[in-house]
Amino acid sequence: MPEHMDSPQVPEVMKAWVIGGPDELILTEKPVPKPGRAEVLVRIDAVAICATDLEILHYGSPALVQGGKPFDKNFTPGHEYMGTIAALGDGVDEFHVGQRVTVEIHAGCGQCKRCRMGMYTSCHNYGLNYGEHNKGHRANGFTTDGGFAEYAVNHINTVISVPDAMTDEEATLVVTAGTSMYGLTELGGLVAGESVVVSGPGPIGLLAVAVAKALGASPLVLTGTRDSRLEIGRKLGADHVINVRNSEPVAAVKEIVGSKGADYVVECAGNEQSINDAIRMTNRGGKICLAAFPHEPARIDLPYAVQNNIYLYGIRGEGRSATHRAMAMMEAKRFDASLIHTHTFALEDLPTAIRYARDRVEDAIKVVVKMRGVERVSQAAE
Amino acid sequence: MPEHMDSPQVPEVMKAWVIGGPDELILTEKPVPKPGRAEVLVRIDAVAICATDLEILHYGSPALVQGGKPFDKNFTPGHEYMGTIAALGDGVDEFHVGQRVTVEIHAGCGQCKRCRMGMYTSCHNYGLNYGEHNKGHRANGFTTDGGFAEYAVNHINTVISVPDAMTDEEATLVVTAGTSMYGLTELGGLVAGESVVVSGPGPIGLLAVAVAKALGASPLVLTGTRDSRLEIGRKLGADHVINVRNSEPVAAVKEIVGSKGADYVVECAGNEQSINDAIRMTNRGGKICLAAFPHEPARIDLPYAVQNNIYLYGIRGEGRSATHRAMAMMEAKRFDASLIHTHTFALEDLPTAIRYARDRVEDAIKVVVKMRGVERVSQAAE
Amino acid sequence: MPEHMDSPQVPEVMKAWVIGGPDELILTEKPVPKPGRAEVLVRIDAVAICATDLEILHYGSPALVQGGKPFDKNFTPGHEYMGTIAALGDGVDEFHVGQRVTVEIHAGCGQCKRCRMGMYTSCHNYGLNYGEHNKGHRANGFTTDGGFAEYAVNHINTVISVPDAMTDEEATLVVTAGTSMYGLTELGGLVAGESVVVSGPGPIGLLAVAVAKALGASPLVLTGTRDSRLEIGRKLGADHVINVRNSEPVAAVKEIVGSKGADYVVECAGNEQSINDAIRMTNRGGKICLAAFPHEPARIDLPYAVQNNIYLYGIRGEGRSATHRAMAMMEAKRFDASLIHTHTFALEDLPTAIRYARDRVEDAIKVVVKMRGVERVSQAAE
Amino acid sequence: MPEHMDSPQVPEVMKAWVIGGPDELILTEKPVPKPGRAEVLVRIDAVAICATDLEILHYGSPALVQGGKPFDKNFTPGHEYMGTIAALGDGVDEFHVGQRVTVEIHAGCGQCKRCRMGMYTSCHNYGLNYGEHNKGHRANGFTTDGGFAEYAVNHINTVISVPDAMTDEEATLVVTAGTSMYGLTELGGLVAGESVVVSGPGPIGLLAVAVAKALGASPLVLTGTRDSRLEIGRKLGADHVINVRNSEPVAAVKEIVGSKGADYVVECAGNEQSINDAIRMTNRGGKICLAAFPHEPARIDLPYAVQNNIYLYGIRGEGRSATHRAMAMMEAKRFDASLIHTHTFALEDLPTAIRYARDRVEDAIKVVVKMRGVERVSQAAE
Repeated sequence: MPEHMDSPQVPEVMKAWVIGGPDELILTEKPVPKPGRAEVLVRIDAVAICATDLEILHYGSPALVQGGKPFDKNFTPGHEYMGTIAALGDGVDEFHVGQRVTVEIHAGCGQCKRCRMGMYTSCHNYGLNYGEHNKGHRANGFTTDGGFAEYAVNHINTVISVPDAMTDEEATLVVTAGTSMYGLTELGGLVAGESVVVSGPGPIGLLAVAVAKALGASPLVLTGTRDSRLEIGRKLGADHVINVRNSEPVAAVKEIVGSKGADYVVECAGNEQSINDAIRMTNRGGKICLAAFPHEPARIDLPYAVQNNIYLYGIRGEGRSATHRAMAMMEAKRFDASLIHTHTFALEDLPTAIRYARDRVEDAIKVVVKMRGVERVSQAAE
Repeated sequence: MPEHMDSPQVPEVMKAWVIGGPDELILTEKPVPKPGRAEVLVRIDAVAICATDLEILHYGSPALVQGGKPFDKNFTPGHEYMGTIAALGDGVDEFHVGQRVTVEIHAGCGQCKRCRMGMYTSCHNYGLNYGEHNKGHRANGFTTDGGFAEYAVNHINTVISVPDAMTDEEATLVVTAGTSMYGLTELGGLVAGESVVVSGPGPIGLLAVAVAKALGASPLVLTGTRDSRLEIGRKLGADHVINVRNSEPVAAVKEIVGSKGADYVVECAGNEQSINDAIRMTNRGGKICLAAFPHEPARIDLPYAVQNNIYLYGIRGEGRSATHRAMAMMEAKRFDASLIHTHTFALEDLPTAIRYARDRVEDAIKVVVKMRGVERVSQAAE
Repeated sequence: MPEHMDSPQVPEVMKAWVIGGPDELILTEKPVPKPGRAEVLVRIDAVAICATDLEILHYGSPALVQGGKPFDKNFTPGHEYMGTIAALGDGVDEFHVGQRVTVEIHAGCGQCKRCRMGMYTSCHNYGLNYGEHNKGHRANGFTTDGGFAEYAVNHINTVISVPDAMTDEEATLVVTAGTSMYGLTELGGLVAGESVVVSGPGPIGLLAVAVAKALGASPLVLTGTRDSRLEIGRKLGADHVINVRNSEPVAAVKEIVGSKGADYVVECAGNEQSINDAIRMTNRGGKICLAAFPHEPARIDLPYAVQNNIYLYGIRGEGRSATHRAMAMMEAKRFDASLIHTHTFALEDLPTAIRYARDRVEDAIKVVVKMRGVERVSQAAE
Repeated sequence: MPEHMDSPQVPEVMKAWVIGGPDELILTEKPVPKPGRAEVLVRIDAVAICATDLEILHYGSPALVQGGKPFDKNFTPGHEYMGTIAALGDGVDEFHVGQRVTVEIHAGCGQCKRCRMGMYTSCHNYGLNYGEHNKGHRANGFTTDGGFAEYAVNHINTVISVPDAMTDEEATLVVTAGTSMYGLTELGGLVAGESVVVSGPGPIGLLAVAVAKALGASPLVLTGTRDSRLEIGRKLGADHVINVRNSEPVAAVKEIVGSKGADYVVECAGNEQSINDAIRMTNRGGKICLAAFPHEPARIDLPYAVQNNIYLYGIRGEGRSATHRAMAMMEAKRFDASLIHTHTFALEDLPTAIRYARDRVEDAIKVVVKMRGVERVSQAAE
């Protein structure tokens, strides 16, 4: 019998934000969901805001958009959360009630050809988690209810134990670090002593710097447009930073890594110029991780890539258990992910928190919402 | 002592075509080159014309173009040749004089980081094979003298024994099949029972069909614009052919492979439309080999690739010993590469042969020049 | 609602063989099982006997042995079966009732670290498929009821569609071919033109010959002790056969593949001598697949392996979707697996069939039991 | 023109130790060797003693032993050296005279199938570096003259730049760390957050601990028989140490890593017991690196390995550019390799140094010989 049934501290209803319409969030109440087989109920303690949340808030969830359906007025976004296990579904003995955990996003169906290969973030049954076509896929905050609420259900494949010494805020950043780790994994992972360039000092780019440094990348270069962000990148391990407003990045990178170009580029800026720069600064036989993308097709220098045997890895999410490796590195204090955490708000202030994240108010990078212990007045991290 | 020194049958001078200027070929005489350590002298028996030859003839060799130098008026192009070993350089006991061999192109320097990784086609010392910067790299027909001549020197890494039962003409096609094999290797190689689409029925595309079929791809789809070429693809193993003039290829492919899209696409057409079609017909987590490319940057749907965790492999040449695997498949009669061989000319008729190849006269696909035993009158294969 | 509930042709009870005690089989009746979520009910049409069945019959199922429990008197062995889908569990739209299918063995839990990596045959929840520790793992015929019965339930991950042109008997051999394919996959898969030795012409060894040949191995050598088996190996593609009773196999192999030794060895004999021969005939940097094993620790020449950078892959089962690739090769008629099928019996004659398999009566290799259409009198395949 | 010709500071003759007979070293004079194409002359500054040196001193060099030849009375062993570039061979612009460098051992021929794959430590032309069969292979200290001398010639593939902040003594340890890194690379390299056991706290084992920790392994366990060594392992990053004299290691490891067993084992003890323990403590689907080996075939529990899909990687040397990754980690101060350096002697005291290393005098681990600046009286590191 699932423990949650007789667990008195789990209420019947919870506060949850739902999407009312484009860019509209409504605070409402929902029944607390019940974990099924191989699932747990997580009492959410903190949740970080991701750029994708802003997209979903504006355009609707991918499941809906792909299905051509209108906004689901009852959908709760939010996917970078952590909390405490409140109840166990059938057959779960990997975790216990009261355990602090953080989450990753993609619970693959386990049945499609990609899941059978271990590529659960590329599940072919993405979004199929309802009705007669229920394949068991979950992507909380994308296709199933997410973390801007008091509770969420997670498949155990998406749950990672949090060490005592790690703060709630830092724990919300594990999935971001895991995405960066996944990108570096797909590039081959053997970056020690290899030249790595990260372009775009957003959260994924900054933690790509941190992860690449932890894996031994050298020299490690970060490019971007804002000196404040580049400075954080330097603290996270960049050996060199290049402000592309002041220097042509391809030439500047080659001055650092040598005229043949860089071994690896992790492209996190996602615009036409940055992608072409990435291609042109990569050496023959080098590899590029595309961790960001423009909204529209862009004029790309594929000829350069093909002539130079360059491979481009379009990555989505945090596959290949990369989140576990990121957590191991964070637990071992190889880098301080909390350097990218700038603001904390109470759950009730989610709209303000989102405004901070979207408009980069006070140079906001990662904005975290906490469920408890935070005044309803917004406060910047010191 | 190198055998060639006392090998009476090797003359001092030979006939060789050289590039006079853009699109100009001149038949001249050159000294027969002498093989050095780990090299052999090949008496050329047959050489096929590749689209890249036409590029080199028009624009100059890559070594020259990259160095910004003018046309080398003494450069001999031609890289898809086969012949008979006429002399051995120092330390060569892997081959013997009189052995029939075919060649691949890239002899890496063996010293750069890519060569140390086994990625000799991505050698970082590409083109450095002269003077004080001699790193030992050779790419005959690209950066060192090639095969539109009576003799050529080859590093033993680029020499493959030809079985008795294989004709000279078929042997010239091994490096083309090796390029297709390299592309499929980089995609992972495990294509048996997987859906594979090849776009563009040029020589590499057609042999990609043949190689993919030999490796068990199923279903195997070929797309293109000319029914005659598609028909040859069908003979080489395509389960389905799609003329993109008559059907929208993304929809047509999905009708065959299922609505999720294809597992692998080998893109050999190289235009903006075909590359975008390739991206959009690939399923989540699928892979694309870019074996051709447009001359200019093109408007590419990278967003689709990144959102769907699709990887793009820009391949150059015939790496990872793929030519040996291609030869093994051809020797075992898994496919009949000679289906793409359409015309044969004498060496003296090279300009005519090139015209046939460039203008696709009489539906020419692979045009082969033979050194001996062919009338000076052009002749189509039956 | 699961289709089987209102599917009139599925009876309530079925005939099933169960293990009574060591080497004792009893024909009894059991309720027809009901497929759950992501499962199907298979009406069994044919089942082949594997050497492992003989082990299980003698020692009990691995689940029981590992748990130290006594024989489960109600356990039905048999894992190499094929049949017709009789009912669908919840959420199954990948298959339809009436479809001919064959099966592989391992349905991983989908939750452990190995399953998350795609290594479902190495599931860390092996055998945990009951009671409160139900992790959903199934290995029909090993830890869950198998195929010496009229019906079995299979997770859809273990079900493969059978083409119309393939006989029932041949379809039972797909999982054996899949095991061989898995071994070659783990060795790297790129065996075209590489020297491969298979030692031990049992079913897995013989189909390893077939699969290696289909993948282009050359030269391909089979070693064994019985000329009749070696002759079948030759028909399946071995270029050379060596009877180890007549020739010292290491020297004999090196005479064929060259003095450096073989690139790959697939060891299917499983005795001390054959394993050491495998090690000593492998060249520097080569790889060995251990597909069989002695019952006890054996005196192994590991020094030779370490000094020569040789890797040994102990493989269990048919992982990495290898069964699908094997089926693709079989459907494309790349080899005739039915060459190893020697005898057919009726279900009621299972004990006789097992005796034929165990004692190699009339040179039996693969003995198949058919549910319908076979006289109760034993009959050898012509 | 090679720089060494007019480099006045390079003398014509040098001091060099040579092997006189089994376990006999003679200090003599030899001509300073001259670097050829792609080679440099290294003035040796320091050289560490490896257990393999002791083997070579006793049995002769592998090249000789394999060829069945008697002791080469003029052979200079020693392979873990570092120094200063004194002259450049033809075509070398990757390094400059005066540059501090350390070395790795294997310079592959660049021509065999393994070298073409990037597996230069498994070169099929191992030892072929003389006379008419000169394939260019070098393994200084094994098959070509090594580092117990004032100068040595190295192929540039075996030369690594040493950062200013690194001491000579630490630089001699890079190749040992590179061997450990190679082992972990072959295991897949993704050990962050995975359980890793290292057995045998010799130099390779201790640096395997250091490298595994740098890569994020957790938990990381070291087993051995001497508490003093285990303590050093703890300083290098072991989370747990097990003295196998006090605890049964398989049970002790499982108590730490969980009952399924460890994900990876790096076996550096090389005896029958330790190898079997390694196999039995590895979880299903796990991997074992065999970095040491017994002198004779041993009774090995291969059945356990096969039944549990365990792979064993016999590694030889420091392949896949692992030495470069090790250097990057050491330069970044991820671990302090000098913790294993215990003693320093002058070149003239090599026999004493060897005695310290062989007999573990004063708990010696790594004993280093320095060419200059060390009194002829032996001195222990503080």
